[in-house]
Amino acid sequence: MTYEENLLALLESYKAGTIDAKTALEKLHAADYTDLGFAKLDHNRSLRQGFPEVVYCEGKTVEQVAAIMEKLAQVHNNILGTRADADKFAAVQKVLPDAVYHKNSRLIFVERKPLPKDDKRYIAVVTAGTSDLPISEEAALTAEIMGNQVERVYDVGVAGIHRLFDKLDLIRNANVVIVVAGMEGALASVVGGLVERPVIAVPTSVGYGANFQGLSALLGMLNSCSAGVAVVNIDNGFGAGRMASIINHMR
Amino acid sequence: MTYEENLLALLESYKAGTIDAKTALEKLHAADYTDLGFAKLDHNRSLRQGFPEVVYCEGKTVEQVAAIMEKLAQVHNNILGTRADADKFAAVQKVLPDAVYHKNSRLIFVERKPLPKDDKRYIAVVTAGTSDLPISEEAALTAEIMGNQVERVYDVGVAGIHRLFDKLDLIRNANVVIVVAGMEGALASVVGGLVERPVIAVPTSVGYGANFQGLSALLGMLNSCSAGVAVVNIDNGFGAGRMASIINHMR
Amino acid sequence: MTYEENLLALLESYKAGTIDAKTALEKLHAADYTDLGFAKLDHNRSLRQGFPEVVYCEGKTVEQVAAIMEKLAQVHNNILGTRADADKFAAVQKVLPDAVYHKNSRLIFVERKPLPKDDKRYIAVVTAGTSDLPISEEAALTAEIMGNQVERVYDVGVAGIHRLFDKLDLIRNANVVIVVAGMEGALASVVGGLVERPVIAVPTSVGYGANFQGLSALLGMLNSCSAGVAVVNIDNGFGAGRMASIINHMR
Amino acid sequence: MTYEENLLALLESYKAGTIDAKTALEKLHAADYTDLGFAKLDHNRSLRQGFPEVVYCEGKTVEQVAAIMEKLAQVHNNILGTRADADKFAAVQKVLPDAVYHKNSRLIFVERKPLPKDDKRYIAVVTAGTSDLPISEEAALTAEIMGNQVERVYDVGVAGIHRLFDKLDLIRNANVVIVVAGMEGALASVVGGLVERPVIAVPTSVGYGANFQGLSALLGMLNSCSAGVAVVNIDNGFGAGRMASIINHMR
Amino acid sequence: MTYEENLLALLESYKAGTIDAKTALEKLHAADYTDLGFAKLDHNRSLRQGFPEVVYCEGKTVEQVAAIMEKLAQVHNNILGTRADADKFAAVQKVLPDAVYHKNSRLIFVERKPLPKDDKRYIAVVTAGTSDLPISEEAALTAEIMGNQVERVYDVGVAGIHRLFDKLDLIRNANVVIVVAGMEGALASVVGGLVERPVIAVPTSVGYGANFQGLSALLGMLNSCSAGVAVVNIDNGFGAGRMASIINHMR
Amino acid sequence: MTYEENLLALLESYKAGTIDAKTALEKLHAADYTDLGFAKLDHNRSLRQGFPEVVYCEGKTVEQVAAIMEKLAQVHNNILGTRADADKFAAVQKVLPDAVYHKNSRLIFVERKPLPKDDKRYIAVVTAGTSDLPISEEAALTAEIMGNQVERVYDVGVAGIHRLFDKLDLIRNANVVIVVAGMEGALASVVGGLVERPVIAVPTSVGYGANFQGLSALLGMLNSCSAGVAVVNIDNGFGAGRMASIINHMR
Amino acid sequence: MTYEENLLALLESYKAGTIDAKTALEKLHAADYTDLGFAKLDHNRSLRQGFPEVVYCEGKTVEQVAAIMEKLAQVHNNILGTRADADKFAAVQKVLPDAVYHKNSRLIFVERKPLPKDDKRYIAVVTAGTSDLPISEEAALTAEIMGNQVERVYDVGVAGIHRLFDKLDLIRNANVVIVVAGMEGALASVVGGLVERPVIAVPTSVGYGANFQGLSALLGMLNSCSAGVAVVNIDNGFGAGRMASIINHMR
Amino acid sequence: MTYEENLLALLESYKAGTIDAKTALEKLHAADYTDLGFAKLDHNRSLRQGFPEVVYCEGKTVEQVAAIMEKLAQVHNNILGTRADADKFAAVQKVLPDAVYHKNSRLIFVERKPLPKDDKRYIAVVTAGTSDLPISEEAALTAEIMGNQVERVYDVGVAGIHRLFDKLDLIRNANVVIVVAGMEGALASVVGGLVERPVIAVPTSVGYGANFQGLSALLGMLNSCSAGVAVVNIDNGFGAGRMASIINHMR
Repeated sequence: MTYEENLLALLESYKAGTIDAKTALEKLHAADYTDLGFAKLDHNRSLRQGFPEVVYCEGKTVEQVAAIMEKLAQVHNNILGTRADADKFAAVQKVLPDAVYHKNSRLIFVERKPLPKDDKRYIAVVTAGTSDLPISEEAALTAEIMGNQVERVYDVGVAGIHRLFDKLDLIRNANVVIVVAGMEGALASVVGGLVERPVIAVPTSVGYGANFQGLSALLGMLNSCSAGVAVVNIDNGFGAGRMASIINHMR
Repeated sequence: MTYEENLLALLESYKAGTIDAKTALEKLHAADYTDLGFAKLDHNRSLRQGFPEVVYCEGKTVEQVAAIMEKLAQVHNNILGTRADADKFAAVQKVLPDAVYHKNSRLIFVERKPLPKDDKRYIAVVTAGTSDLPISEEAALTAEIMGNQVERVYDVGVAGIHRLFDKLDLIRNANVVIVVAGMEGALASVVGGLVERPVIAVPTSVGYGANFQGLSALLGMLNSCSAGVAVVNIDNGFGAGRMASIINHMR
Repeated sequence: MTYEENLLALLESYKAGTIDAKTALEKLHAADYTDLGFAKLDHNRSLRQGFPEVVYCEGKTVEQVAAIMEKLAQVHNNILGTRADADKFAAVQKVLPDAVYHKNSRLIFVERKPLPKDDKRYIAVVTAGTSDLPISEEAALTAEIMGNQVERVYDVGVAGIHRLFDKLDLIRNANVVIVVAGMEGALASVVGGLVERPVIAVPTSVGYGANFQGLSALLGMLNSCSAGVAVVNIDNGFGAGRMASIINHMR
Repeated sequence: MTYEENLLALLESYKAGTIDAKTALEKLHAADYTDLGFAKLDHNRSLRQGFPEVVYCEGKTVEQVAAIMEKLAQVHNNILGTRADADKFAAVQKVLPDAVYHKNSRLIFVERKPLPKDDKRYIAVVTAGTSDLPISEEAALTAEIMGNQVERVYDVGVAGIHRLFDKLDLIRNANVVIVVAGMEGALASVVGGLVERPVIAVPTSVGYGANFQGLSALLGMLNSCSAGVAVVNIDNGFGAGRMASIINHMR
Repeated sequence: MTYEENLLALLESYKAGTIDAKTALEKLHAADYTDLGFAKLDHNRSLRQGFPEVVYCEGKTVEQVAAIMEKLAQVHNNILGTRADADKFAAVQKVLPDAVYHKNSRLIFVERKPLPKDDKRYIAVVTAGTSDLPISEEAALTAEIMGNQVERVYDVGVAGIHRLFDKLDLIRNANVVIVVAGMEGALASVVGGLVERPVIAVPTSVGYGANFQGLSALLGMLNSCSAGVAVVNIDNGFGAGRMASIINHMR
Repeated sequence: MTYEENLLALLESYKAGTIDAKTALEKLHAADYTDLGFAKLDHNRSLRQGFPEVVYCEGKTVEQVAAIMEKLAQVHNNILGTRADADKFAAVQKVLPDAVYHKNSRLIFVERKPLPKDDKRYIAVVTAGTSDLPISEEAALTAEIMGNQVERVYDVGVAGIHRLFDKLDLIRNANVVIVVAGMEGALASVVGGLVERPVIAVPTSVGYGANFQGLSALLGMLNSCSAGVAVVNIDNGFGAGRMASIINHMR
Repeated sequence: MTYEENLLALLESYKAGTIDAKTALEKLHAADYTDLGFAKLDHNRSLRQGFPEVVYCEGKTVEQVAAIMEKLAQVHNNILGTRADADKFAAVQKVLPDAVYHKNSRLIFVERKPLPKDDKRYIAVVTAGTSDLPISEEAALTAEIMGNQVERVYDVGVAGIHRLFDKLDLIRNANVVIVVAGMEGALASVVGGLVERPVIAVPTSVGYGANFQGLSALLGMLNSCSAGVAVVNIDNGFGAGRMASIINHMR
Repeated sequence: MTYEENLLALLESYKAGTIDAKTALEKLHAADYTDLGFAKLDHNRSLRQGFPEVVYCEGKTVEQVAAIMEKLAQVHNNILGTRADADKFAAVQKVLPDAVYHKNSRLIFVERKPLPKDDKRYIAVVTAGTSDLPISEEAALTAEIMGNQVERVYDVGVAGIHRLFDKLDLIRNANVVIVVAGMEGALASVVGGLVERPVIAVPTSVGYGANFQGLSALLGMLNSCSAGVAVVNIDNGFGAGRMASIINHMR
């Protein structure tokens, strides 16, 4: 019984007089989040924001990740784990055999009732170079599990700008655009000047030396001379996918 | 005759056979931008993106700012000048007497045909402290001149969080939320966790010492534990207003 | 015979005339610290400040750590080793079989005469996310071995602020509050605005990208808009536990 | 009628039946804070935390500061304005003639009913050099207006450490110690190793070159090899005074 | 008599037997540089490298600048002073009435025998925005006084990339390209991908907030994904002009 | 059939009437770049710029690198892979047995038709210390595969400056000079003051502590007091070799 | 009566029986330093270290500086004030008419009994450029007032290295060498490789852009590839002069 | 035959007429350094500066280190290798069986004719904590191989300052003092204020979090409020030992 079904049953019981008001409130409260001691699983937020519950796996122990995802799967249909290494996935798979792992993007998917997608609006994920793919896939997969259609436009960095122009219609027709780029991150500014839709820029740590682990792309995107660009953390493909999804679902 | 009217007249002439195709193309191209030598005024972008032409005044001379705005006013109804000091406004006012100056936010407005506003959707501009007002007003005024209704929620920083909760409905009912905060910028994370709409975060340079001219708020917002937050440059109220406007106009 | 008993015996001998003044002074001085060559063990400081002797294990060799802790155990009842890896604990355990290891927090405990605890005053250790647990446990365990009662309030980061409010009474009734948070560290400001007690903030290196190994949380906490917050080093759970213990023992 | 008297009158009216419950609640709520539009004055927090209302003046206009302080003076006996320049004080003085200005520390005081002081416990403010005086005075004056006795120990930096040892008893007998130092900030570590009481360290921007506006002292204090030291923002004398006051009032 | 004429006369005297070898050597050595005490004017380097002697005026006193330029004018035909404010120019003009001042670029010119220019090869100075003009003019004027033809392509930043493409032929036909840009400096990467000639990139401090006085553009340009781009210091228009001139004179 | 031959055949077919204009254009376009999905191989750029196609291997998977280089080898004679580890080379070698690996410089070479070299002009690669050799070899080998003669002048750092002067003629006679140095990078300034040719400076990450992974050399070179020095990214031997090659091929 | 004479008189009185032991000790202690409240003047340190008492004037008020220097002049023959602006000197001159001001170096001198100088050993102050003169003069003047002979070697930066070699004998014969340089600070490494004596390096803030107020020179000098170089703070000419003086007085 | 013997033999041959002037010069030049291609071994510098030839091993290959040290051992009696790992030592030991390895300090010693030591002057190496020992041993061993007597004063950090005072005589009687400290590096300032001899400060990377790999100690030492302190690179024990040795040998 998922969280939503649980809540409905509760309300019905109260309406039917099976439980009194005080009990109903207590149960409602208990349903709100599960306290595992080391973690408080916030079911209500997920419901309220209409997207799968998300688990940030980095810094958690293998055991914690498995316990959290197992518990979540009892009340949610779709779950996403981010920044998970192979060991954590192995532990999750033991308790949730239908979990799927996207190795390069370090995502764990449990997707039992895929969210419906509006096939008329899509998010374009535009990527500077092949080395940025793990992050752009993190963004694209996140957007997809949250119920969005995604078009991938990969390896169109500004060093060979005709590759970008060849794909311009695909980018301009998108409802929201995610730009993923490392090194100097110039792609965000160029795309930002070409489209009329919101651009979510993801700086990546791709590069070396004076890129300072993504600082160069981050500063480049924050200082974009194109208006209509907003930035998420370095290598935060998930955050960009989530942000784009929120915007894409607006009516 | 504004840029739009100019284009229409041109197309009419061609349809009527007054000018031939070659001439029409040349004129269209000439209309595209005005080359002042030191600046190329990009009329087409403004038209395409449906918002007033914007002039970044910092680093330009007084004479350049006045010349650019004067020229723009010949082809556009609404113009915005950002980061303008009083001297630059004085020079603009000489050539454009209907220009208006918002001193604290350093904005110059020429607004001859205000854009229509959808009064059912508004952008909330949520601000941590009174010292952040110049930047939040820059965001709010930018959003307004670009045709958006704006609700201001000021001085609701997290140090006294009940002030924020008193305004929660107003914030949650917004279509897009701009959060403006200096110091540690925590307000962005708190608001991001409370709303289901996109949050555009503007770090400000308010504070001192280890705020490092806004770095603390910038890093805080980039590392927000709440998904659904994207960030613009430090003190970039204009950029946030512009980004929120793009999103707010999406249908 | 512990350091304290040693000192008392010495004073008795002098009073009884068994030793003369010069000998007493020499012995007192010798008791003050033990010089191992590579380390000078400061017994007096420990006595003076009323808490177990603490060994910072990082950067010391396995042999040095074992030798220091063995020597300390000859004159102290309670010893704490911080930032110790498993190899160092293994070496310590050989010479001190009753040593206990808290793996995630990398603490070594020797606790032969636990300090008495005031059960009416407690320190609350409030933690943003599960990934911060190693550091918050370091703080909590440090406070406990130093003779304090501790209440743990875990996974109450600001992204889901109702989890925090559910625990507000527990936090407000604490005598001292430790806040442990990574990423943007906003929890410190929010808690600081809600309580009337001193808040010790511990930034953690949890996060990635523009968190710059904890810099984002550090700057966030230093710039907290809430007064009554003071900060220790990144990931310094021990320092926070120690500081909170000092304050909690004040009368 | 101050805030406290106002609340009491309200409760009396309700008890006497002059007003009904609904009205009482509304009035209570209204009393909670005053909304000036550009600022929300939080009376309750002040009451709850038992110290004068504090106004951070930097970044606010002269008019805003005067309006806020005037309003606060209607409901509070004691008010503190921090980081105020002479112009702002002049404006405040017009509306509050009994306001007092501490020029070097940039503090504005309105102190109508000085808080009682426990003359058995004092806060020691220990300062490295004469150039740090504006910040240490900010700390000391803040602590005093918040009802604490303060002992000033000035110009005892570690370059001439016998000056510090001459004052050691005064420092060791303090209930709480504030250490104010610029340059390398070593005084915090030395004092931290000598006392058994909590040490609040304030890095100052005193110095030049590689002090990077206080970064050197800040990092030095955060990395203090002495436990029992917690740090506030660079030049944040107010924050240290406030933190020390909270601790000093604990029983 | 200029430095070159002086050397020739010396050699002639020696050939004619008017002076002996030892005297010739001594005079040659003396001619090499002039020692003013506070400065050693290096005539030989100028001759060897074939460009006007250059004086970096910042940090020198008004008197020093005037004395140096006056002395240089006795042995050189063309002199360049960089980063000179109006006061320094005024002092120079008193002793060298034919000196010319380019105010925005802070250059002082003494150009008595302009160097010949190859009119078939030119340096393109491509600039992102009008606010970058002081620096791009510094580059262009430096290149011109060093004997190069220069084409200016101004205000073609990537936010409106069609402005750049309109000028592409002019840029592609240049022998060397200088790209001047602030903010994120993306123009360097875009141009670098479009041309086959060496690109000298000049990051400017134009922008605010997270541009950190030009750091964003600097890092962006250093991390350019386009090969064939090399970078000079922030705002170093002179260095770029000088570098481009060296390359442009190669055969 | 290489890219060039392919293009020629296409043009011939069209001239001969074997294919019509539309087909020719489509084929031309298809020849322009190969879209592998995860990468778009830009054949035209390579042709246009007259140097081997270059693959940046870092951040790409082993499979991606092998696939890209295999595909490129079908249309190009000479290919360069940079920053490749041994695993990636092993995979490339399987599909391209004639690939050669320069282990220390992490370069993969496929060189089937070496480009002709002008033996009268050479690039000097001047290196401060033996530890900088991997980077200076990256620069030298890059320049060689791009058709340049290279002279290596190694271990001539400024700590023993007579070693540099012994090689001065070799350096001064070069057409272009690359200076590779870590630590403080002073060699670039010294060489820049001695030669009349363009100097491309490569800061390396050689050093420790306050070199901050190459920052010290980078800043040193950017602030060189010698004009005629331009800088590439830290450890970017490839970029320097490429830049020098462009300049060296200019006529 | 100076400090030294005072002490002698005291000892004589005690020997003669005029004062008893207790009084002697009290007087000795009182002589040790003067407590002005805001400053503790440490006479003993000055005596012990054999150099004039030094007052760091920055951050002190005009009144404090004058009071301190006046008091010091009562017990010391030679006094040095560093980083003093003209206003502070004016105030000092009122109370000490024989005070002398070195404007560019911002030093105040009171030199009543110049220290004897060893004319066989000198300190060489070697300076890169004319813009570094204020700092190198601070170093040279400091060394002179502390009783050292100084040779100035100015404007010998590495961009024209023959100027340095012309002065090599003068530098090599020095007993201690101070190198003052801004920008990339390469001069320290070059000199360090040429001399056998200790080199004290002073980075200056001369330069702009990526010099980051002296950081480039500081890092350059700290990473010097020449052993035998130690570094003081940016622009700390005083510190270098003081350090060189200590070494120069060693026998 | 060592370098010195070699030179003497050469001069004798010339005096005896066995070789002519030209041959003598050529041989002298050849003796000056050995060119291994990847390295130029500078024999003359070593001779001139009177200390063993030093090889910086980091960044060099195992083979290069072994070849360089083998070659050096043919002309020098004493050789020092710094920052060498165990693999490099193993390779050296194969060709130089009498080489000795100091593992913690990563030094390789070949010491065939130990330099004489002045047993009346010693260098004190004062160390804050046991974790700093690898660096302080690097300094002490370097000073010893260069012919100095060394006194080690370990684990006397300022957190327990009485440990330092117990050793004060030993420190004050030193001719030169090296202070090694990590974390906040306060020991340098405290020692600097207590001694009259030059203090060479070595910041170490000991610590974590906001120590930023030694930056905190580095900045602390550069900003020391004690004059007479100069600083070397982070973890540069060798540099400090070398600098102290130069000073200690001065007469």
